[in-house]
Amino acid sequence: MRLQNLRKRMAETGTDLVAVGPTSNMAWLSGLHPHGDERPVMQIVTQSWAGFLMPALNADSQRGLTDLPFVTWRDDDGPVGALRDLLALAGAAGPVTVALDETMRADFALLLLDNVQVTRRSFLSNTLGHLRGRKDADEYRILKENAVINDGAMRAAFACLREGITEAEVAEVVQQYYRDQGAGTEFFSICFGGNGAFPHHHTGQTKLAPNTAVLVDIGSRKDGYPSDMTRAGTFGTVDGFDEIHAVVDAAVQAALTTAKPGVLARDVDAAARGVIAAAGYGDRFLHRTGHGLGIDIHEEPYITATSDVVLEEGMVFSIEPGIYLEGRFGLRLEEIVILRADGPEVLSDLPRDPFRA
Amino acid sequence: MRLQNLRKRMAETGTDLVAVGPTSNMAWLSGLHPHGDERPVMQIVTQSWAGFLMPALNADSQRGLTDLPFVTWRDDDGPVGALRDLLALAGAAGPVTVALDETMRADFALLLLDNVQVTRRSFLSNTLGHLRGRKDADEYRILKENAVINDGAMRAAFACLREGITEAEVAEVVQQYYRDQGAGTEFFSICFGGNGAFPHHHTGQTKLAPNTAVLVDIGSRKDGYPSDMTRAGTFGTVDGFDEIHAVVDAAVQAALTTAKPGVLARDVDAAARGVIAAAGYGDRFLHRTGHGLGIDIHEEPYITATSDVVLEEGMVFSIEPGIYLEGRFGLRLEEIVILRADGPEVLSDLPRDPFRA
Repeated sequence: MRLQNLRKRMAETGTDLVAVGPTSNMAWLSGLHPHGDERPVMQIVTQSWAGFLMPALNADSQRGLTDLPFVTWRDDDGPVGALRDLLALAGAAGPVTVALDETMRADFALLLLDNVQVTRRSFLSNTLGHLRGRKDADEYRILKENAVINDGAMRAAFACLREGITEAEVAEVVQQYYRDQGAGTEFFSICFGGNGAFPHHHTGQTKLAPNTAVLVDIGSRKDGYPSDMTRAGTFGTVDGFDEIHAVVDAAVQAALTTAKPGVLARDVDAAARGVIAAAGYGDRFLHRTGHGLGIDIHEEPYITATSDVVLEEGMVFSIEPGIYLEGRFGLRLEEIVILRADGPEVLSDLPRDPFRA
Repeated sequence: MRLQNLRKRMAETGTDLVAVGPTSNMAWLSGLHPHGDERPVMQIVTQSWAGFLMPALNADSQRGLTDLPFVTWRDDDGPVGALRDLLALAGAAGPVTVALDETMRADFALLLLDNVQVTRRSFLSNTLGHLRGRKDADEYRILKENAVINDGAMRAAFACLREGITEAEVAEVVQQYYRDQGAGTEFFSICFGGNGAFPHHHTGQTKLAPNTAVLVDIGSRKDGYPSDMTRAGTFGTVDGFDEIHAVVDAAVQAALTTAKPGVLARDVDAAARGVIAAAGYGDRFLHRTGHGLGIDIHEEPYITATSDVVLEEGMVFSIEPGIYLEGRFGLRLEEIVILRADGPEVLSDLPRDPFRA
């Protein structure tokens, strides 16, 4: 069914050949998770053919997972001959328009590009990425389940705050919570005070002192899908925190109100950015407003200032504006939403109010 | 020092520009492990300049890790302008020969290739990969420490065998052993009986029955480096096992005897392959003889039938011939060696004799 939808989308977008690496794109399209080493593995899809370039020594273990054909190659021969055979089978020996999995290794991609006559090259965002963006009911159910687990982990993170605890110790509380729920850890970023002003701070040995802002951005993974949420709070009192929190929360609200099927992703970004700029913090909002979420924690659609993506019903993405004040604190609030016909449904059941400890 | 060595090697190989992605190559060269998302990050090295293309929101958290300059870009602007500025700074606005990190994402690589005039393109094997292949004393010490941990884990794996235990339960014993030693799990492949005939079998729920061959290929990771070793044994008696074991062990010995500084990697492969072919199992040795091991569990040098790599003192690689008999068992024996002036030093202290249970 996904293969059928992909071919339909390829026809609509004038794409002759889609090349998928051994990445989450292959997992989504075909349910295969091949051994991810330096041996080229690729799935090729055209209107007339679909199958895999496969190292001989992985063929047996993958054979049970798909009915599609394998063109195999052995270490001694290398992959070029097998790839050329495959392209002939796929009707792609002549000039073709190609959409390439942007997350595959550079050498896999160049192996393909060096052996095919490319008349137009694109990445997957407009074909397979587009389809991945619209979630089905099963995916929604798993994402919701992960979001509820993450709500509990967030409560546990803020509940454990005490003077002297380290960021790493808070992260351990979060990870233990995930384990207790049968979930894995996708990532964590626990930021005390000024550390929060770095949007990608590495959780470390900083100890919690009185009157410090706390920023927690965490995600679990269960049944193949992740969660992702950010909340903020204070340990004691922090000058200016409540004002900044109110601005960021209003930015989230503005984005939530704007996001509807048919709206451009950049208009959602503009709504959040406008609120923050109007409050005088435009230059302290250092990143895009959001990213899609599915098998990958970052995937299509990206909610950026320049995106031409038209939002569609069933898309799942984050809304996560932030304000970063160097030497003081950073404050970001992040929701994951699924876009319904009448607007976004927020997956988390946890209010965005500041945590107080 | 590594940067200096890289520039020397670039001069020797006629390479004007080296482009490194946010991969283990960057960790090795510069000690940076940037946030690995879809935002392009790259280190560019020429004889006159070295620095990074860096997303603005990662710049602060990475700044303390290197003295080299960053050319930053913001989500709203995208990376192209910053990359062009960087190439001008690096003296690479005109035609250049480029060596590209083959493990970076396809979109990062094509971003570079679309913005530079490439007169010759290669991957890193002959420049940075070559340097990574020759280990220093610190790296040797850590690799040896991991090998000793892995010896213990291998003993634990075979010691826990009993009728009805599953492959996954043996894997858990291995992982617990690693945890007890303060190490992480790099990978495991536990194969009972016919499962061993798939070189990349996924450890599963197969239960151990009497008179079954057992193949264990496991690796830990501690202090940033992995271990990797394969041993084989029997639970009860298995027809033909001892004969096959003797052939594979002789193949390992032949490769060990052949490997010397100055020898071609393909001659080491030929030595192992020759023993197996002479015993009549040439077509059941499904893969190359070995791979380099360092920060990555697979890296330069690769010991294949076609490799022109000249082995050098200080290189670390696996020797792991195998024979795969469908429906019966697979038997592979794997050692990691460091190449000394007079030949290979095997890192493991564990004999290759069959385990008997």
